[in-house]
Amino acid sequence: MRWWGWGDAQHTPTLGPRSLATLSDLVGLATRPRPAVALSHVQIAPSRLDRRTLAGFVEILGQHGVRTDHHARVTHAAGKSYPDLVRMRAGEPQGAPDAVLYPSSEQQLGLILERCQRDSLALVPFGGGTSVVGGLAALTGEHSGLVSLDLGGLAEVARIDRESLILTVGAGMRAVAAERHLARDGLTLGHFPQSFEYVSLGGCAATRSAGQSSTGYGRFEELVQGVRLIAPAGVIALPGHPASAAGPDLRQLLIGSEGVLGVISQLELRVRPAPQQQSFEGVFFEDFASGRTALRELAQEHAAPAITRLSDEAETRISLALAGGGTLKRRFSEFYLAARGYRGGCLAILGHQGSSEQLPAQRRRALEIMRSHGGLPVGETPGRSWAAQRFSAPYLRDELLTHGVMVETLETATRWSNLGHVHREVGAAIAGALGHPRSPTLVLCHVSHLYETGASLYFTIITRQREGAELEQWHELKRAAAEAILANGATITHHHAVGVDHARWLAGEIGQQGVQALRALKSQLDPAGIMNPGKLLV
Amino acid sequence: MRWWGWGDAQHTPTLGPRSLATLSDLVGLATRPRPAVALSHVQIAPSRLDRRTLAGFVEILGQHGVRTDHHARVTHAAGKSYPDLVRMRAGEPQGAPDAVLYPSSEQQLGLILERCQRDSLALVPFGGGTSVVGGLAALTGEHSGLVSLDLGGLAEVARIDRESLILTVGAGMRAVAAERHLARDGLTLGHFPQSFEYVSLGGCAATRSAGQSSTGYGRFEELVQGVRLIAPAGVIALPGHPASAAGPDLRQLLIGSEGVLGVISQLELRVRPAPQQQSFEGVFFEDFASGRTALRELAQEHAAPAITRLSDEAETRISLALAGGGTLKRRFSEFYLAARGYRGGCLAILGHQGSSEQLPAQRRRALEIMRSHGGLPVGETPGRSWAAQRFSAPYLRDELLTHGVMVETLETATRWSNLGHVHREVGAAIAGALGHPRSPTLVLCHVSHLYETGASLYFTIITRQREGAELEQWHELKRAAAEAILANGATITHHHAVGVDHARWLAGEIGQQGVQALRALKSQLDPAGIMNPGKLLV
Repeated sequence: MRWWGWGDAQHTPTLGPRSLATLSDLVGLATRPRPAVALSHVQIAPSRLDRRTLAGFVEILGQHGVRTDHHARVTHAAGKSYPDLVRMRAGEPQGAPDAVLYPSSEQQLGLILERCQRDSLALVPFGGGTSVVGGLAALTGEHSGLVSLDLGGLAEVARIDRESLILTVGAGMRAVAAERHLARDGLTLGHFPQSFEYVSLGGCAATRSAGQSSTGYGRFEELVQGVRLIAPAGVIALPGHPASAAGPDLRQLLIGSEGVLGVISQLELRVRPAPQQQSFEGVFFEDFASGRTALRELAQEHAAPAITRLSDEAETRISLALAGGGTLKRRFSEFYLAARGYRGGCLAILGHQGSSEQLPAQRRRALEIMRSHGGLPVGETPGRSWAAQRFSAPYLRDELLTHGVMVETLETATRWSNLGHVHREVGAAIAGALGHPRSPTLVLCHVSHLYETGASLYFTIITRQREGAELEQWHELKRAAAEAILANGATITHHHAVGVDHARWLAGEIGQQGVQALRALKSQLDPAGIMNPGKLLV
Repeated sequence: MRWWGWGDAQHTPTLGPRSLATLSDLVGLATRPRPAVALSHVQIAPSRLDRRTLAGFVEILGQHGVRTDHHARVTHAAGKSYPDLVRMRAGEPQGAPDAVLYPSSEQQLGLILERCQRDSLALVPFGGGTSVVGGLAALTGEHSGLVSLDLGGLAEVARIDRESLILTVGAGMRAVAAERHLARDGLTLGHFPQSFEYVSLGGCAATRSAGQSSTGYGRFEELVQGVRLIAPAGVIALPGHPASAAGPDLRQLLIGSEGVLGVISQLELRVRPAPQQQSFEGVFFEDFASGRTALRELAQEHAAPAITRLSDEAETRISLALAGGGTLKRRFSEFYLAARGYRGGCLAILGHQGSSEQLPAQRRRALEIMRSHGGLPVGETPGRSWAAQRFSAPYLRDELLTHGVMVETLETATRWSNLGHVHREVGAAIAGALGHPRSPTLVLCHVSHLYETGASLYFTIITRQREGAELEQWHELKRAAAEAILANGATITHHHAVGVDHARWLAGEIGQQGVQALRALKSQLDPAGIMNPGKLLV
């Protein structure tokens, strides 16, 4: 993974000259490209670890398990949040780990935690490195040093129980590797976040990940049957029973703990037969409200396809503009004309998955519901084009940053009866925050992740970077959005997690007593406070 | 509710002379009936509360909100576990609350907790009074007195959000009252535990209840969207978002907390459109293993009806014997003959629910799966007769106790690949425990509550009571079953909860570190340890 941005260095740019011209018209571009500095120019302080401490780690992990070189420290200095990228591209990370450690067993993990507790070294568990909320920020807290714990070596498949559909696997395994492994048995986890190509399974568990197919397969916490956590105080091993009434569900305490209680080392995960077929359907609605009603009915009748998304008017307009002409645009225009008098139009994408017997009936039922709310089917193209690009937004973000354009995403969820209200209020708050000084701003949104009781809203914000004040600009945006989300009864995060970026609003969601309860648990499991300080609980 | 047993005093006995004769043959009956003592003969110590303390409660609740009379104290002295009933029928409860308090607002609740904390009085939250694991035992711990907190007055429907399908309701509301209320809007919670006629919603949340339709509607913890807990340390109010990644899911710590952290005062619960139609189907399998395979396929293909049960050979044989003759028995015999050479037969009951359009396809698909594993459909009779008796087992237990027959149930869950093994091992452990001194024992079992990864096993044990040593006999049974369950990788309880009866095995399931984590949480929320001492965490 690129140290200053997303993905594979070989990845070719996605923004053609036409799209850049459109963006220039819409929000403006920097007068000249602003690339990242060279790796060697990234400024990090010398490692604070003395020879004795390093030798101690080498004793546990061997020579290859301990790295203090510039490359290792820089690549483990941050995740992929907007502030992370702004800082890294400028060569000025907030800090960097004094060493990167590569354990390959739970026993080594336990010994590392013991050593860090003794020497007052803070630890950042590092899975795929994809956090977009500052979950990997190199914060030392009150400790004397900081190590990054790269979990890539804890990636063994311990067992696939085909009868019970349970995969037991090391938490460091990448989602993409797990899918490859499962595919041999015709199985899938069905978990495809935008970060799919890099994310680790432990990271998905630690952050309550949701993926693009989670309407069908469930959020990551619903996939977790069993979990092992290595904490400074000891090991918590929670068995993967299908269900239990043996007191509070501690699994749901470890899931979402973001590395502040300990290190998730192993997971038992539900798997499913891989779908035989997949089909996409684009549907246009006259407006966002009727599309939302159709999606609500899909969810409440258990008829929602695994992938279900609905863009608002602004997101629909911009994606069409950036996607260029062709059949889809023509169909859209015809529809637009036919339905004279409405101000835009909203594109929904339905991605059905299943067996060849099930699929036709599923599609039929979903389309019936779409049509009963004025939905106009427009064929497979929009869905196919979404699918082709489904993991490429992070690359696009890097390209836009090079052109001086800020692109940030944030997400929330609320009940159906509150969804339209939250969409309006949060959208207005974002636009308001970025309106001073005046700069054209795009605030795009889609509904995804349907539940019987509600859905998520995923906002994308595109505007010119305020040069020299990029982080202030972002903070204003973040504050305005988070405050509007809380004031209007929605969650501060539906699937990005808390990290550093949302931590100050956690008490607004779960209350001071809720935060105190989590602190008490942390004191029990991590009495010295070495685990990922500055995240989640601050 | 009868103070010495289950339900309405007007309920007519269910055991006819024929069934009693069958039981007499199978396990034997007491030589003469052993009814419960009269209420006035129940021995409880005088209330330990002084006049000042009582006046303090009256100040908060008014004269009618504080009771210290014999009837109130006896009816709140225990739940409905086997040891509870043995003790109550003998007029010798373990203890009794010194007063019963009836708050009708969260504010009153908060004041009561404050007062109890100050005066070192233990509290037992009391909902429907139906615990079968000692969750309501009158244990004072190290405190100077004990009050029972009857939550029947916290039963207001605050809101029904029809669009989002969420009911906001006081936790003291009975499930049966909630269903009546929801029926006016064509809605249902779909939660029907055997205790349905008495159980409170707060009790269902505090104990991770599962009901007879939970294969279709989900366990109670899946219905809980939001929850409010009044703890001695303050209020935790967790909002009912459809989903969130804002750290650990604290809701899942309050659910299942069995009154030891605080009092659940309000719930936001998912509701569903009430099913238009219901249909039952009985299916015979040659053996338990093929029936289990069919059920597994139902669950993993998402084709399981809301109600799905499969009795093992012993349970099938006994239910047919007790149900008497008629069509079903004839069909069974025909099948038995036709399939010559197998040793018994297992009855499955499928209860489909849904709209008139959905139901036929659902039934067809389920029957296809049943047939592909050798299942023989035998019509509606077994299902209808199960449905007619679905809430009557607790009445039957009382009648059997009068005849000197112990009937106890216990349940577990495990993954599909382990289900047959756990069935054998736990069954053998139970039979072994009750085999000395030699007494004929029936060990019956059914699978219910299907999940993609596994299912529950529900054991019913019927044997002659060891007169004068009823509790010792029960303890031997309980120990043997719990140890076999843990040794074979299953959960100590799938839906009965922990209470007193399972508390000593909790660490065997979640480990010492898991128990320590819960203790830390309790210390934070209930620093004086007044909440339901002796339950869950001991």
